[in-house]
This record gives sequence, structure tokens and C-alpha cells, in this order.
Amino acid sequence: MRVGPKTLRNRFYQVPHCTGFGTTKPLSQAAHRAIKAEGGWAAVCTEYAPVSADSDESPYVSAQLLDDDDLANLAHLTRSAHAQGALAGIELTHVGAHAGVRESRWAPLAPSQLASDYHALTVPKAMERSDIRRVQADWVAAARRAREAGFDIVYVYGAHSYLPMQFLSPFYNQRTDEYGGPFENRARFWLETLELVRDAVGADCAIAVRHQLDGLGPAGVELREALAFVELADPLVDLWDVNIGSIAEWGGDSGPSRFFAEGYQLEWARHVRDHTSKPIVGVGRFTSPDLMAETVRSRALDLIGAARPSIADPFLPRKVEEGRYDEVRECIGCNVCISKSESGNHIGCTQNATAGEEHRRGWHPERFAPAARRELDALVVGAGPAGLECAIVLAKRGLRRVHLVEAEDELGGVMRWLSRLPGLGEWARVVNWRRIQLDRLRNAEVLTGLCLDARAVREYGAELVVCATGARWAADGLNPFTHRPIPGADAALAHVLTPEQVMIEGKRPAGERTVVYDTEGYVVAAGLAELLAREGHAVELVTALEQVAPTCDETLEGAGLRRRLHEAGVAMRRGVTVDSIEPGLLRCTDEYGQSLELAADAICLVTQRLSNEELYLELAADPEALHAEGVEAVYRAGDCVAPRLVADAIFDGHRLAREIDSENPAVPLPYLRERLAAGPPGA
Amino acid sequence: MRVGPKTLRNRFYQVPHCTGFGTTKPLSQAAHRAIKAEGGWAAVCTEYAPVSADSDESPYVSAQLLDDDDLANLAHLTRSAHAQGALAGIELTHVGAHAGVRESRWAPLAPSQLASDYHALTVPKAMERSDIRRVQADWVAAARRAREAGFDIVYVYGAHSYLPMQFLSPFYNQRTDEYGGPFENRARFWLETLELVRDAVGADCAIAVRHQLDGLGPAGVELREALAFVELADPLVDLWDVNIGSIAEWGGDSGPSRFFAEGYQLEWARHVRDHTSKPIVGVGRFTSPDLMAETVRSRALDLIGAARPSIADPFLPRKVEEGRYDEVRECIGCNVCISKSESGNHIGCTQNATAGEEHRRGWHPERFAPAARRELDALVVGAGPAGLECAIVLAKRGLRRVHLVEAEDELGGVMRWLSRLPGLGEWARVVNWRRIQLDRLRNAEVLTGLCLDARAVREYGAELVVCATGARWAADGLNPFTHRPIPGADAALAHVLTPEQVMIEGKRPAGERTVVYDTEGYVVAAGLAELLAREGHAVELVTALEQVAPTCDETLEGAGLRRRLHEAGVAMRRGVTVDSIEPGLLRCTDEYGQSLELAADAICLVTQRLSNEELYLELAADPEALHAEGVEAVYRAGDCVAPRLVADAIFDGHRLAREIDSENPAVPLPYLRERLAAGPPGA
Repeated sequence: MRVGPKTLRNRFYQVPHCTGFGTTKPLSQAAHRAIKAEGGWAAVCTEYAPVSADSDESPYVSAQLLDDDDLANLAHLTRSAHAQGALAGIELTHVGAHAGVRESRWAPLAPSQLASDYHALTVPKAMERSDIRRVQADWVAAARRAREAGFDIVYVYGAHSYLPMQFLSPFYNQRTDEYGGPFENRARFWLETLELVRDAVGADCAIAVRHQLDGLGPAGVELREALAFVELADPLVDLWDVNIGSIAEWGGDSGPSRFFAEGYQLEWARHVRDHTSKPIVGVGRFTSPDLMAETVRSRALDLIGAARPSIADPFLPRKVEEGRYDEVRECIGCNVCISKSESGNHIGCTQNATAGEEHRRGWHPERFAPAARRELDALVVGAGPAGLECAIVLAKRGLRRVHLVEAEDELGGVMRWLSRLPGLGEWARVVNWRRIQLDRLRNAEVLTGLCLDARAVREYGAELVVCATGARWAADGLNPFTHRPIPGADAALAHVLTPEQVMIEGKRPAGERTVVYDTEGYVVAAGLAELLAREGHAVELVTALEQVAPTCDETLEGAGLRRRLHEAGVAMRRGVTVDSIEPGLLRCTDEYGQSLELAADAICLVTQRLSNEELYLELAADPEALHAEGVEAVYRAGDCVAPRLVADAIFDGHRLAREIDSENPAVPLPYLRERLAAGPPGA
Repeated sequence: MRVGPKTLRNRFYQVPHCTGFGTTKPLSQAAHRAIKAEGGWAAVCTEYAPVSADSDESPYVSAQLLDDDDLANLAHLTRSAHAQGALAGIELTHVGAHAGVRESRWAPLAPSQLASDYHALTVPKAMERSDIRRVQADWVAAARRAREAGFDIVYVYGAHSYLPMQFLSPFYNQRTDEYGGPFENRARFWLETLELVRDAVGADCAIAVRHQLDGLGPAGVELREALAFVELADPLVDLWDVNIGSIAEWGGDSGPSRFFAEGYQLEWARHVRDHTSKPIVGVGRFTSPDLMAETVRSRALDLIGAARPSIADPFLPRKVEEGRYDEVRECIGCNVCISKSESGNHIGCTQNATAGEEHRRGWHPERFAPAARRELDALVVGAGPAGLECAIVLAKRGLRRVHLVEAEDELGGVMRWLSRLPGLGEWARVVNWRRIQLDRLRNAEVLTGLCLDARAVREYGAELVVCATGARWAADGLNPFTHRPIPGADAALAHVLTPEQVMIEGKRPAGERTVVYDTEGYVVAAGLAELLAREGHAVELVTALEQVAPTCDETLEGAGLRRRLHEAGVAMRRGVTVDSIEPGLLRCTDEYGQSLELAADAICLVTQRLSNEELYLELAADPEALHAEGVEAVYRAGDCVAPRLVADAIFDGHRLAREIDSENPAVPLPYLRERLAAGPPGA
């Protein structure tokens, strides 16, 4: 597949996506992309790469390309990608009105002086002609540096309502000069920039445009104008990378599985073909080989673009090419990758514990060093996310035998019911993929319905023991704000419920009015509220936090989730703490410290989780008994250490297995901290 | 003044405070502290410095001291401080339960498994005995590295409810072993750690404890127990650094001037004297030499501690010592320093434009390079924050004459009325200090009540012109979410008001019910609502944002401000946009997209500011006319470029004056980006 002067080796294309590495952590960046290149992607791209100092959204980490040090940093990526036979792309851009400029302290720029709809308190300078020329010159300078750094594909990125789209969109552009008004004028900035970049590097690099077909709101143009721009710019473009949603509606592009099915962007992308003679790449959380093949066969797209699926499984292309379909570790659409790479942190993934750890911990998603003492048996107690992952990695590291023992009849631990909350069905992939892998591992043995006490663990016959017994929700209202139980909170009573009682035992609220009380702020309380409301209960979601499910804002689920709760008839009340529970009544305090009584026939407590650490502590407390039975070491992993995100519980199980030979596997090994080391003063 | 084995040269002590530099930007860190050392502070300290990888609050930047690269990075600070005759302190700590561990992915640790009251979704591991030993060993290792890096003062920091206080406080500590229960048990962790650190480095370094006398809530201990701890630990401590407030109630420590007067912490700190034989340092936004002297004389404190006042004026000690009281640039207590150093960004200051710019832009707060062409006259149009600052810096750079011309009768621009909003009185210091400095500059001339049009500017006789004409609030409801005026919004009508109309012209809402409509989220809407409510109007604050005044959460003012609004009788409604204004009625949409009608006799629009750029644009559009009158260049600065924080407007005026000799002063010069430069691959 030709794109301008370059050739892609297949139709798998890793579109630009954030990592938290940018230009700041060049070796982490290079390693993350190189693994994908090794996994078969024909091209790997950086995250967004500002061309100017005033395109500054710090602390968000970007692949900014402002000087020759940036060039050298990013050259590590291109070299690593090329060594694996992939092309490398860089998503050059300017964010315009959305620059918080907290690093540079320059003024943000935009076609007109209209406050950013994305960042608070961000009002741009209306660009003077000289600003336009300067940004275009910056773009050309960055493109030249990109070429020198070895990039094959250079973007003039305007999707997500960044500067080129801000010129194209009447929402942002209210100019009256030759850059504003009629469509041709609004297209001028983008076209000029494309021409300049093409003139500068077009002979050596493919020129890609990431284009927003629909802003899913006012912050863009309508499909009709978006397609007109494709026609107008087509001669200047070698590759169209199309998507939907503005940055303020990013959840419409990186759609969570809660709201969006695989391939959901095809509805827009399939219109592009009639307006271009160039290849098209698009996204839609593609993980099904059938849908990918059909998408290409129907000519909806030329290239299967992926961000999240490439994070969940960097080896997706190879596995598909080799027909190893049941080895594809499918993205679950939870968007934890985004919540992790936001705000200056680095990427992570629920499904792929090695994502982001390629350089700093030296982890490869498909390769596992043989354990030092492969003659040992390991017993993993608990087949929730951490236990499943730990058992798989121990088995792949070649232990003689890995016994995964689960007390329940079913694998999955917390995932058994978490994935049954409304909208979270795809999360079951966490268990399904691991169940299939365990089936293929000859040295792994899975037992369900077997509850082991400390004596049974000691006598099991395994030298290594890992407790992965998970966590439970407090049944007494223990919570972050009082660190005490709530008087009257006792889940043995009919009118007090825990999440597990609702989801596993089938306990239901007595009476009409049910309050779901949340002091956690992620998916459980909202999920229970929606579920109970859809069953016909009158539900009020009372949260002690300032917002309903604020952590879901980090995963781009928040606004949609709250809308869905509202549509399901769930009333919502923020900033209210429940002080005591009486039959029919909750005594509460509002955010101003005032007392408040809420009528409620039942309350479901989503306040704090507690580790199921009793088995581990009992085992650890008696080293002699362990020794007597030949148990050399007992560790724990996942929620049983500290309750956390599923992604982090899986990470912890993975880490323990990777580091099982270290001096003290209970304490994680140091990782490479990729940062400036200034050296001693005067040196 | 002796502290352990060290001697302080005077009683001015820069207590630990965040910068956003930490160990990550070592030269910026060193330069920021070195300037204070030069300005006379007897000691300068780092921000909080975690000793373990699990004490990880990334993306917050800390001075973590985990390895020898960190040591070398921080040695730049100590060397710079020593060169200026100051001692250097490092605030070693472990944040315990408050570690979001987004970088390390270790588990957070705490005495008991109680969810953090500060960070959402953060549940710690209850520390095993081995965890306690490991953290204490980490602390000792960090202390040894600190000594090797040249630090004179080593902290065992437990204030702000970090790990040592978490052990001391029954709110966090529910252990039943020898580390929990009675006071002596709860004190054990801190005492043991102190002993270990003292044994390791106590002969060479002073051992300081930062101690929280009152958590201002449950997250600490009562004053009585806090003082009992002082007695108990006193033999192990060389310096008590005392304050109040937990990290979740940080606004009680770094109290905004809106709520706290100078010296407000003395109420607690004065109790310490009777319980210790060691020196005491405390804070309270001290800027008045009289109060400082009285505080020391009364033996309330031995050392005047400062974080914010040392940021606003690094030379405060020298100026006080030399009796140059009216040169002290007093902190205004706006906490913009905190909002800027939060979340991975770097420090800044409303009063001191050079704060944080010492290394990367090479700016010194008291020294100004002579301008290249000192024979020129400059005309600065507009004496708001940017104009005042620009004029002062131009004058200090030695231009022949700097003319600052203000159309109004009073200096200050937006500060004339911003500082009259409830609680913001101290903000007037921005203008007062600058007025005094201008008076002392012989080459600066200030004219008020003179409104210049383009012709008058050209004919003024100055070769350099700077427009600093500020910004105004949109009078038609233009806002970030629609980028359009609101139908019916016309400030010429009696029932539609702008902030300036209320604050300058004295226009007041007609009728009973007034809505203040906010789409900005900082101090203006909340201030107007409180002011009007206190005047007797029935006020509802309607914000399109998810929270009332969310930017005030970044300055630690949010919770208190909302409580104050509530007490003033202001009703508050979040997530609501105003779609049209009719007499007596607002048509609105709520956060779920549903229509809503609000009865309102008047509406005050706080939606977006617009630059007063007309004069600049007219001047710039006619270069020939400028040339004819001998005007060589016209620039603009501050809100007149793009409306922004007062701190950033002042910064912009300062920057322009510093860079007036550059090739194109309109475009800021690049700054040193202190970051990892990996160099070319394979090199």
C-alpha cells in the first residue's frame, strides 16, 4: 500500500495516540512503539506533536518538536520502528485556542478571540497575519526536523478541533479577512500549511491529514463541509486519517465500550471514499478480524487504524496474519489507557500489563524470561484478575506446575459481576482471554470450587504461594471521609446492601426508595444505580464527592454516564455525606455543613473496599508451619494487597510473576526513571 | 541562631514549598532557591521530598531523593545556596495513604487500610512490620544522600497528614499492635524514624520536624496531643517547623488572604514554646516587619518562616534588614503560586514575575540589564497590571524616559475594582507597590486622566509604544460554549449588567431576583454574587461549569468560598447554560440537555473577556503614519493581547520589557527547557 513516497507493508496502522512519554521520555516512547512495530503494525505514530511554544497544554505530555534536542529524542522512535520494518509517523499540530500555556506562558492563539470550550479560563489572542505566518513557519521547521529525525509520515493534524479545524469551523472562526467567512476562506490556513509542508518535505515524506468528519457538537464542521475539504485538499494529501469528535467531545472519538460498539465510526468514515483518490485510514476499536476484513473489502477504509487495540495487543497484526485469532488480547474499551496517560502520567492498559513498561521495566508482551528455579510448583489462590494474570505469567516463565485455585465455581473474581453492570459487558474479555490462554498452557492447572484455608494451602504441595484473594466492599459504611463505619450501616439488615449482595446474591432493596451511596466515584455506584432503576426501583444516587462518578471523567465516560443515569430515572445528589442510617431515613450533611434528612427505604453502600488479606496474614504469621510443609515463600498480589483498578491489580499480578526471582519479590524492583540527570555541580 | 550543628545567619527562614521543579528540573530548582539565599534568607528548603518509590503523587512534582542521580540533581541547590551564605534544608517525607502511585504503580502504604481522604480511589495497604522497616530504611538512605548532597537541615516531615502523622492520628491509625492504640504507640513510628535519621546524620545535619498542630478537621491530632508529641520527641529534634491543616485542608495552612489575616497561625504556634527547648519556626504569610519583630520579641517564634512571602519577594530579608520597607513586594495571598505549581506545572507569582523564571529565562528579581538603546523614550498606554509592570521594568532598564499614561483618574486598570470584591482587599498591593516604585524611578513619568487616541499616541514623541489597554467583559453574553452572544443579552438594558457596570458605574440589578451567570469559573462571578447578596439582593449564581468557581479550588479558596456564598444567602446552580434572556425570565438548559426556565429580574453576565485591542490594531495597521512621527515600534502586553490571570498579565508586561531589545519582542524568546536530551540514537 503506497502512501506518497512510502510503502506500508500491510493494512494495520497504529494511528497517533498519547502515551505520556512524548518527547520527554524518548526511550520509553521508542520502546512502546517498537514493540508494536515488531508486532506487525505497518506504521506507528507519535502522539500529538506541537510545532510552536504557544501550543502548550502542559502538564499533558506531547511529542513537541521545537528544537534539535527534541529531534534527537524522537529519532530513537524512528530508528526502533525502522529496525522492525515499520514506518514512523509524527502528528504535527498546533492546538490553538486550547493551549493553557502553563509551561510557556505565551498567549494561546486562535482565528478569533473566543474562549476555549475545552480548558477553563483560556482566552486566545486573535491571530494577526504575522501570527499566521509564524505558526506556518514553525510547522515547516518542525516538518524538516521530523524528516531529519527519520519520520516517514508527517501530519498536518487538525482533527479534535485543533488549530487547522479552528480555522475551518465557523464555531471558532469569526474572522472577516481572507481567512474567515466563506468555506474557501476558512480552508485557507489549512491548505496553505499543507502546501508549505508538502513543499518542504513532500518529496521524502508522506503527508497525512488527520481530519474530523463530525465534531459531534458545534466545535467543528458538518460532514458535508468536512467532505468538501477532503476534495479541496486531496491533491496535497497522501493519506487521510479520519475520525469524529472534538477534543471537548473526545469521548465520541475514543468511545468507551459502554456506549460504542466496534466499528462505530464507519458510519462517518465510509463517506470519504467518494471524495478522495488517496488512501483512507480510520478507527473504531477494531479487534474482530472479520469486521476488519469486511471493512477493507467493502472499501470503507484502506487501512485499519487502531490506537486502543494496539495498546491492548501490540501483536494484533501478527496474530491475525497467522490466524491465531484466539490469542488476540482484545481491548475492553474501558479507556483506562487515557485516564493513565492524562495529566502527565504514563500509559497503562487493563488487558496488557506491559503497556508503558517496555523500556522502564524491560517487559515484552509476548516474551517471558524463564524463571530461575523452574523446578518449583506455584499455588495461586484466587482466580480474579491478579490471580489469573500471575498464574499465566508464572506458567509462561516455565515453572514446573502452576496451580490456580478458585473458591467459587467460576473464574474471574470481581469481574464475574463487574462486567454485568450496565454497559460493561466487554470487560468480561479480561477473564475470557485469560481462560483461553490458561487452557493452552500445559503446566497450568485450574481448579474451581475449592476453598483453601491456611492449612490446606501449606499442605498443597507447592513451594511458592501467591494469595490473590481480592477485596470486598465494606459492609458497614467505612469510608474515606470519616474512616469510621456509618451508624446503622449493617448489611445483615434487609435495608442495607453491599454491591456483592446485589450482584452475586441477588439481594434487592426493600420498599420503594433506594439510595445508592457513593464515596468511591468510579463505575460501581453508578452501575448499581442504573441497574436498580432499570429494574423499577426509585433510585437516588447520593455521592459525597463533588461530582457523580468523577473518575469516569478521566475515562471519557462521565458526561454520557450521567446522562444515561438521568434517562434511567436516577436522581443525583452531590456533596452529601450520610451520617447515620435509620429505617426509612438517612441523616446527612450537605457540602455547606448543614443537616439534611433523606427518606430512603434502603441504602446500598459503595464506600470503600477492604483487602481479603486474612489468609495471607495467617500464612505469613507462621513461618515455621510453612517451612514444615516445604513452602518456601508466600506472596500476595492485586486487591488482596490494596484494592485498586482492575488494570493495576492485573499489573500487580504480572509484576510479581515477572520478579519472582528477585531478592524480595514482595517489594517491586526499581524501574528506569527516564529523566534529566544533571550530574554533580561543576562536573 | 543555632540549630543542632548548624548556625543560621538571621531569623528569616524559607520553609519548604513546592515549585514544580523538585528533582526533575535541578537547575531551575537551584536558581529559584539561590535567589532567595542571595536575598538574605538564612535557610532555603526544598519542597516535599519522598524517600520511597511508593510515596508517589505524580504528576505532582517533588524533590524525591531515591537514587544517586537525584542526589546529584539536588546538589546544585545546596551548592548555590551555600555560595550565597544560606543553609539548605530538605523536606524528607513519605505521603503514605495519599500516594496515587500513578508513576510507580506500587501500592500506597498506611498504618491501616483506610481510603485516602485527599485523593480519590486511593486505598492503601495496611503496613506490615516489614513495610515499616523498609520505609524507615529508605528514610535513612535518603538522609545519608541528603547529607552527601550538602544539605544542612534534614526533615522528618509529618505535617499535612503525611505518613508520620498518619501513625500519630487515630483518624488514620486503627492498628492494634505496638504502633497503634495509646498515644505512645501511635508516636512510635515517628520517634523511631527520628532516632534512626538522627543516628545516621545527626552529627552533621540539623534534624527538623515539620509538625501539624491542628488538622482543622479529623485528619490529625488535637493540639493537646500535638504538643505532647513535641515534648516526647524534643530530645531528637533540632528545629520545630510548625503549621496547621492537613493536606485535604491545605487551604488552612496556605491560607488565602480572602479568609486569613497575616500571622493567623500564631494562635496555634505560640503554644509550642512551653513544650520544647529547641528553636521554633512558623508561618502565617508574614510581610510586616513590625509583626515579625513582635513575633520574635514575644518569643512566639524564633524564626520567621515564609513560603509565599519569599516567592513574592525573594529579597524580603535584605530589604527589612536595610530598612527599605517600602520596597518589600508583599504577597497578596492569592495562591496563584500554588495553582501554578500544582499538577506538574511550575511556580509563578502575581507580584513577582520572575518567580520560576530565574534559570530558564535568566531573570533576577532585583537586577535588570541596561537596554541596548537607552536613548529612546517609551510610551506605555494603560496603567493596569501589565502596563505598570512594563513601565517599571523599562525604566529600570534605563530608557531615557518612560511615560505611563492612563485614561482613568486612578492607576490600576482592572485592579481598581477587582480588589474591591469581597475578601480581595490585599490584591490592591499589586498596584500600591508599583505606584511606590514608579515614584522612585526618576526616568518614569505617570499621567492619569489622559485618554490617547491613535493620533495622540503617534504624536506623543516616544519611539517605543506599548499598548497595555487591558480587556473588558463581553456585554452580550459571548461565552466559551456557544461562541455566540446570548439572545436578549444587552448591557444597555436595565436588567442586564456587566461586572464593570456593577463595580465601576454602580449599576444595580432592577427588581428582586438577580442571576449572576458564570462561564469563567474564577473570582469575578462569585465575588459579584456575594457583593450583591450582602447588599440585600436575592442572588442565584448560575454556572455553566460543573462546579462553582472551580479555578478557586486550584488556589485553595473553593470550598471556603462556596461556604461563604451559601452563608451570604447566594443560591447556586451548576451545569446550567443560559440560552436566552427575556424580561423576568431566563431560558436555560441543564446538564442533561433538558430545558429549564428561571425567574430572574436581572442578570449579571460573567461570560468571557475581550481584549481592548482596537488602539493597538489601528496603530499597527498604519506603519507609515508611525514612521512619519518617529515611532519605531508598537507592541502590546497583558490582557490587551489575550485576557488572562493578573499574574500572567504582569508576567507579559515584564517579559516584553525584558526582551525589548530582541529581534522581535512581540514573540517571546525561547526559554531553557530543562529536560532529558537523550542525544542521537547510537551516539
